[in-house]
Amino acid sequence: MQDLNEAPLFQALVEKANKEEARFHVPGHKGGYVFPGHGRKMYHPVLKLDLTELDGLDNLHDPQGVIRQAQELAARQFGADQTYFLVNGSTVGNLAMILGCLYQGDVALVQRNSHQSVFHGLSMAGACCFPLLPEVCPRFRVAQGIRPEQIEDALRRCPEAKAVILTYPTYYGWAGADQFEAVVRTAREYGLLVLVDEAHGAHFGQHGSLPPSALQLGADLCVQSTHKMLGSMTMTSMLHIRRERVPVEDVEDCLRRLQTSSPSYPLLASLDLARLFLSQMTRTDWEQALAAVQELHSGIRALGNYLISSGTGREQDPFKLVIQPVFGLSGFQLQEALRQHGIEVELADPYNVCLTLPLVPHPDWNNRLLQALSSIAKEAGHLQREKGRPGKTPLGHQPGEKGAGADMAELFNQAEPAPIPMRVYRAQEKEHVPLSQAVGRQAAEMITPYPPGIPLLIPGEVIKEEHVSHILRLKQAGAYFPGKQGREWPSVAVVKKNEK
Amino acid sequence: MQDLNEAPLFQALVEKANKEEARFHVPGHKGGYVFPGHGRKMYHPVLKLDLTELDGLDNLHDPQGVIRQAQELAARQFGADQTYFLVNGSTVGNLAMILGCLYQGDVALVQRNSHQSVFHGLSMAGACCFPLLPEVCPRFRVAQGIRPEQIEDALRRCPEAKAVILTYPTYYGWAGADQFEAVVRTAREYGLLVLVDEAHGAHFGQHGSLPPSALQLGADLCVQSTHKMLGSMTMTSMLHIRRERVPVEDVEDCLRRLQTSSPSYPLLASLDLARLFLSQMTRTDWEQALAAVQELHSGIRALGNYLISSGTGREQDPFKLVIQPVFGLSGFQLQEALRQHGIEVELADPYNVCLTLPLVPHPDWNNRLLQALSSIAKEAGHLQREKGRPGKTPLGHQPGEKGAGADMAELFNQAEPAPIPMRVYRAQEKEHVPLSQAVGRQAAEMITPYPPGIPLLIPGEVIKEEHVSHILRLKQAGAYFPGKQGREWPSVAVVKKNEK
Repeated sequence: MQDLNEAPLFQALVEKANKEEARFHVPGHKGGYVFPGHGRKMYHPVLKLDLTELDGLDNLHDPQGVIRQAQELAARQFGADQTYFLVNGSTVGNLAMILGCLYQGDVALVQRNSHQSVFHGLSMAGACCFPLLPEVCPRFRVAQGIRPEQIEDALRRCPEAKAVILTYPTYYGWAGADQFEAVVRTAREYGLLVLVDEAHGAHFGQHGSLPPSALQLGADLCVQSTHKMLGSMTMTSMLHIRRERVPVEDVEDCLRRLQTSSPSYPLLASLDLARLFLSQMTRTDWEQALAAVQELHSGIRALGNYLISSGTGREQDPFKLVIQPVFGLSGFQLQEALRQHGIEVELADPYNVCLTLPLVPHPDWNNRLLQALSSIAKEAGHLQREKGRPGKTPLGHQPGEKGAGADMAELFNQAEPAPIPMRVYRAQEKEHVPLSQAVGRQAAEMITPYPPGIPLLIPGEVIKEEHVSHILRLKQAGAYFPGKQGREWPSVAVVKKNEK
Repeated sequence: MQDLNEAPLFQALVEKANKEEARFHVPGHKGGYVFPGHGRKMYHPVLKLDLTELDGLDNLHDPQGVIRQAQELAARQFGADQTYFLVNGSTVGNLAMILGCLYQGDVALVQRNSHQSVFHGLSMAGACCFPLLPEVCPRFRVAQGIRPEQIEDALRRCPEAKAVILTYPTYYGWAGADQFEAVVRTAREYGLLVLVDEAHGAHFGQHGSLPPSALQLGADLCVQSTHKMLGSMTMTSMLHIRRERVPVEDVEDCLRRLQTSSPSYPLLASLDLARLFLSQMTRTDWEQALAAVQELHSGIRALGNYLISSGTGREQDPFKLVIQPVFGLSGFQLQEALRQHGIEVELADPYNVCLTLPLVPHPDWNNRLLQALSSIAKEAGHLQREKGRPGKTPLGHQPGEKGAGADMAELFNQAEPAPIPMRVYRAQEKEHVPLSQAVGRQAAEMITPYPPGIPLLIPGEVIKEEHVSHILRLKQAGAYFPGKQGREWPSVAVVKKNEK
């Protein structure tokens, strides 16, 4: 059996590179010597590893050698029957698991605050999406998970549903493992296949103080962005499966179709190295990482100007930190203020910023963060005294006000949830109308602030007042909507009226 | 206007990395310090550039800043109206251009020796494929291009066809630019959209001694593997369009669906650098590169034991070198023999090996190649004298024998070409039968030796004796069929008979 202390793919790559063979093969940079001079300095020595499907380096689309070994080690580390290395992000994992399991007309129950790639997969499959509306955290005003009885309700309306698609944890690190476990149990009892977008939880289940992983809680397929919370290069992810109920051959076919036939070996090997890193993390390493988190929490609490996420180890990912200023700055403004102090965060929304914390404590960053938060609060307090009015959040709520998350609950709320047939709309089937004139029309595109990449509107959905007002408030507060920066924004593509 | 001597994306990335900000964002390796020690040595300093959509770094899915600038410079360099950077290989370029232009039931004329991703795209679109059978080079026995009258013949049978999908050049570097130009002209005259897989021709049109690019010859969309012949990292490509007749919005939608929402910045910036490298190549640089090719050609000819590709600059890519031993070694055997001499080639088939030559001559590799070829020939001659029989190629033909390519022409030949409705077959719709029992059945999978990745069978095609015998001969000769290494091989998935 392979040793978890090895990284077979990385080692094979280094060994091959060190042979210094004459490279009459792609890539054209030939190990890096055909590369512009000032680029070479930053890209060496990794270009030496940028090889292709040469002797001994296996083939991602038919792994029999070192890639297979690396995937098997990952499957052991993550408790999967089978693990697939992905080089096109969790996006391709979501697409492949959905396209492999769901076909034209199939119905899936879908947690409404899923990543856009989930809805893309459903559109491409021509499947129907029965939306499950998430609970909204009243404190941070962000969508979280669903409740098990929603599965049963949905099945009364849609008994033909084949699968449920869940997000665990959310972008903000919300896991709610007990409730998630109950949801999965219920879904399995009713024979639903359980597909989980676990993009933000690649480290879950690896230590007792973290929430368990989706696989541990009964998922059939789950996709993890290894690059997000573990250490692989951006764009690399893993798809894990519990084989029993999964149409493995169909899922593998989808991966072969959707991923390049020229995958990057340095990226693939970084997955092997990230798994090795995890395999070699000791109890002490974990304790140090978690202690640094606790210390940061205490430091921020001591400032007295910020709400922060906490919760037990099963509820909230400790390595995601949500910070909400209680003195009238919006999340977007706090993000910008931190940037002025040389600190980049992961995500801002109207209320909060969200940070990803390292698995190895940095000697310096936490102190820099505390100092920055402290001086931002002082500065803001000063400004507010000058203006002589109390702080309000940008959407008009009191900071931390109970129930203020209602705006998002309203947004996702539908009087009578019904399955939405998903499909791809072509340009000729759409027309662009000002948002204010779109109420009652059927959306023909997604409207998605990024991050977090959760669509506020999905194609096929009927546009309501709540959508329009929510989008406008977000825009006003400074949210970024990719593809929506032009003069015509705020506009939305809707399905053309059939004039005849 | 941006300066072609700049690399705006790469420069912005370096600048951002040099700020040494506290990285409370993904990726989890945090610039590389959360990375296993022995990996760090090979991956530094590029991990510092492995950033995400931070302030100033733009967004691939909605480029407004440095990515847009880099793409605009590329469009200028390659003569496109618009250029898209791709991080999921030419695969995603082929998928997006096909899915953007062709929908359920649409008919495309398709050069039959296209890459598998072309057929994947057609299957996913639910389009119909009218195969255009390529000419076969009698000397090297490899498929090449199609003739313009084939477009007219096909349109007589399929007047509803919307597009033609061509491959230019082939994996072996065959361009046949005059004939290709005539094909494109004919297709445009009949109003067909012209989609070109130009994966192997990213350098075309950049110097007078190279074949012109597909865009220069009239293509509407073309996909180039920048990583193959130019210098970007593996997995990076470009999609170029001439806007006039292209459904741009639909193609862009497809790219947004099919590419990760977490693209790798080092990979993207390597596209910027590869374009910069090309922009800065002087006439002298090109002349030196081409002179090194000529010198290598002369050296191999002087050995007297090998046929090599040549042709004029419009016919054949000088930076692809096809070598056929005339003394009884198969291409696969020559590949293995070269490997023993520390030389890796790009591709082997039963007859030939194919090499990609660098755009910057290597001080040492050509001599190593010549010495290796010389000693392999001597050694083989010696062995053959011992065995006392003349060399034959592994498929039973005399080396270089005229017309011997007939086996591949037979393979692709169909008595009456008809459009094949393409679709994805699910596992439950297929059954696996031994190849020998498959004649007359409808294929439900592709059978594709790799490289070159051109399917011998596509889903929906009726399997004939010629398919079976060709596949068996290739297998016998040592071709590699991904996914086909198990005990059951040679078998093939066919569409299940409807028993009822």
